[in-house]
Amino acid sequence: MPRAYNFAPGPAMLPESVLRQAQAELLEFGTTGASILEISHRGADFMAVAQKAEADLRTLLAIPDDYAVIFTAGGATTVQALLPLNFAAPGQAADYVVSGHWGKTAIKQAAHCIDARTAASSEAGGFRDVPARSTWQLSKDAAYVHVTANETIHGVEWREIPEVDNAPLVADFSSSIASEPLDISRFGIVYAGAQKNLGPVGITVVIVRRDLLARAGQPRAPIFDYAAQAKAESMLNTPPSWNWYVLGLTVQWMLDEGGVAEFARRNTRKAALLYAAIDGSGGFYRNEVATAARSRMNVPFFLHDAALDKVFLEHARQAGLVALKGHRVLGGMRASLYNAMPEAGVQALVNFMQEFQSAHG
Amino acid sequence: MPRAYNFAPGPAMLPESVLRQAQAELLEFGTTGASILEISHRGADFMAVAQKAEADLRTLLAIPDDYAVIFTAGGATTVQALLPLNFAAPGQAADYVVSGHWGKTAIKQAAHCIDARTAASSEAGGFRDVPARSTWQLSKDAAYVHVTANETIHGVEWREIPEVDNAPLVADFSSSIASEPLDISRFGIVYAGAQKNLGPVGITVVIVRRDLLARAGQPRAPIFDYAAQAKAESMLNTPPSWNWYVLGLTVQWMLDEGGVAEFARRNTRKAALLYAAIDGSGGFYRNEVATAARSRMNVPFFLHDAALDKVFLEHARQAGLVALKGHRVLGGMRASLYNAMPEAGVQALVNFMQEFQSAHG
Repeated sequence: MPRAYNFAPGPAMLPESVLRQAQAELLEFGTTGASILEISHRGADFMAVAQKAEADLRTLLAIPDDYAVIFTAGGATTVQALLPLNFAAPGQAADYVVSGHWGKTAIKQAAHCIDARTAASSEAGGFRDVPARSTWQLSKDAAYVHVTANETIHGVEWREIPEVDNAPLVADFSSSIASEPLDISRFGIVYAGAQKNLGPVGITVVIVRRDLLARAGQPRAPIFDYAAQAKAESMLNTPPSWNWYVLGLTVQWMLDEGGVAEFARRNTRKAALLYAAIDGSGGFYRNEVATAARSRMNVPFFLHDAALDKVFLEHARQAGLVALKGHRVLGGMRASLYNAMPEAGVQALVNFMQEFQSAHG
Repeated sequence: MPRAYNFAPGPAMLPESVLRQAQAELLEFGTTGASILEISHRGADFMAVAQKAEADLRTLLAIPDDYAVIFTAGGATTVQALLPLNFAAPGQAADYVVSGHWGKTAIKQAAHCIDARTAASSEAGGFRDVPARSTWQLSKDAAYVHVTANETIHGVEWREIPEVDNAPLVADFSSSIASEPLDISRFGIVYAGAQKNLGPVGITVVIVRRDLLARAGQPRAPIFDYAAQAKAESMLNTPPSWNWYVLGLTVQWMLDEGGVAEFARRNTRKAALLYAAIDGSGGFYRNEVATAARSRMNVPFFLHDAALDKVFLEHARQAGLVALKGHRVLGGMRASLYNAMPEAGVQALVNFMQEFQSAHG
């Protein structure tokens, strides 16, 4: 089938212009006589690609100079495993605020080497909201406070950065980085797997305030040392160079489109359109997340009768709307509306939902 | 410039047919309506790609059923960091036999959590040979014995698998996997970054005898647990799916070309051609590795006068022969002759070398 509107949660839809450029250059990159898949990561041609990607990302996200940017293989889960090793002492406390599945994962990756405390959790309410700041039980001796800015499965997003003053705020922004302007200086660390808003699968970005890199952390392999990785410009070993290149193309595309301020406007309109369709369906569709914590990036929704799920998915697919099946943890549907999803895609989804309701309501 | 013969050590030359297929499918993969870069790693379309890649790799390398195959992000250095965490107790001894730069790296990645012993090393001789088996000082209580099958920088290769009976043999085959038939059953673990003989950068293969996965290892994050990763079919988290796909295309290509027996014949001919040209140059070119330990994959060589290096590289480039500059550790030149390098490429290099010698000898 021709290219569809792809609502996958990640790996996710990429801008067609990015794919077309990667396609055009796949056999011969510039004057190298080779594919970018085949050239040395330490050669001048790739170094220029890597450095431009970082410079453009710094521009896009307004990353202050006192933050290092690390590009690394593995996903956000790997970062979650390396956070305590780099930024906490053995057995030290760290506070985790849990608003969904991925916040729990972050604790699991850290629990073997630190005292990973659940400072607050909205699990008792089925992760349909963020835990109110007033309910957090923060430790006095925490190495950091960890939050998940946007929960990809549960569709729950922090719409304001919570105030934290006892320790650096560390945030998993995998599914909402670059979706709107962000004051990086409010955070000690911001990290994100790229396969949602930053482009391709297989590469992850860690933005870390440089003073934190001076922390001793705890015994770990040199390859897992973020200070060394920052010093080596993310090339302690062979990086996922092709993935880095596609990330760079995607960041360039976002700058060309008007940057994060423009994407904030588009994402607000896209999310409003879909939530209005759900809320206006008279219960045929429903989203259960508290209004103030609804994600603009991932919209889980349920049909009033789960017996219709299968036919909904099949008809949607026939209409060129793919990857709408919800995560197995929640069931139902989920539409991910990252930056590369055009407003026309969301409009097509809303139109389809209304027609489906007319036929099956 | 058009596509050249690319002698890069990794990322390295890929078969043109693999690049062309990846290019053709980059915007629309099968009937998904999306790029393979954009589809879920857990969906049926990608799962079929992943499973075929594993099945084909098992066929190509004749991997016995009692070995698990893990596909993972990060390179061989990351594997070196995870080996002791998964397969040794805290502080336990492990023996490392060092025949070049990467053997030393393997020790560095392990030294923080085990007693990583140098059982033998050829460093005193400048890594121009492998340490004779009779000189190895093996420990009685070693968790494993680690060797580097082929040293990419120093151009030193084990041409026979050494006998080890005290502990499982663990081998870094990053730059020689699939270059000839290999009896996997002689090893406890074989691992390899893919970006040399298995295809693209950004993915690594770990082949591990299943009984070793029952070892307790030592405290580590769940994402770093190889037993869990094997059980989850390498999908504990989002894998580098596009890279996995290109690996699969490359493995399919190797099977289509006749498998590892055929590549062994080609690689033997290619290496013989280049070494003969070096040895027959009357000292204009030289390779310093002991004849019996010369690598078929990576051939470092030096011009008799280093002042000619720059003009050699520039003229080679003009002749369509790229990425011949040696690693900074050794200087000089290096030609990497992985499976995707055709014999015609080596012949072109040899012709060029003879013409260059005529002009500058």
